[in-house]
Amino acid sequence: MEIRGLEACPIADVIDVLFSRWTTPILWGLHERGRQRFGDLERHVPGISPKVLTQRLRQLERDGLVARTYHAEVPPRVEYEITPLGASLEPLFGSLSAWGATNMPSIEKARRAYDG
Amino acid sequence: MEIRGLEACPIADVIDVLFSRWTTPILWGLHERGRQRFGDLERHVPGISPKVLTQRLRQLERDGLVARTYHAEVPPRVEYEITPLGASLEPLFGSLSAWGATNMPSIEKARRAYDG
Repeated sequence: MEIRGLEACPIADVIDVLFSRWTTPILWGLHERGRQRFGDLERHVPGISPKVLTQRLRQLERDGLVARTYHAEVPPRVEYEITPLGASLEPLFGSLSAWGATNMPSIEKARRAYDG
Repeated sequence: MEIRGLEACPIADVIDVLFSRWTTPILWGLHERGRQRFGDLERHVPGISPKVLTQRLRQLERDGLVARTYHAEVPPRVEYEITPLGASLEPLFGSLSAWGATNMPSIEKARRAYDG
């Protein structure tokens, strides 16, 4: 966990859980396409390496946001899906998305003014 | 801006703006204590270096979330405050905070189960 001025910011813990790099694209991929295998997920999170995807999936599983199911078949099959705890993020991510849709144009305008 | 699988995740841009390291403690400090000078802000964001605080304030000013006012006095005085665009984050940060308050205990429980 990174030091972010924990005493000063009440949402730093939540941010560490939710907004590590790659975390939201993985959760988004699982949310949009449901239960899937590692290779499917890898194809739908552009630019991620297998090593980082493995690390992030372990972290998300440890946090209880993603569930991993091992099917003892030949060959063995492993699937990942979002848990109810992970799914409880949907309204929050919806609010973030809505704030961005409303305000990213203002941010881009502010950047142009600052840079110009 | 970091590559986070932009094609796959509709909130990656918003996350880059809002959740760069130190961004939320700074916004929180300005939100809680209103317009203030650099030194005041520095004291209320524990652990931040002056260099990083300067960088982050520039980034937040460029994004239009923080306003910088220069008072041409002797000695000159510079103050920072949150803009209306920055203040529009309050409900979003409130939702994040509420999600954390409700769900961080479940995450910590999941971690203990995973590690045990």
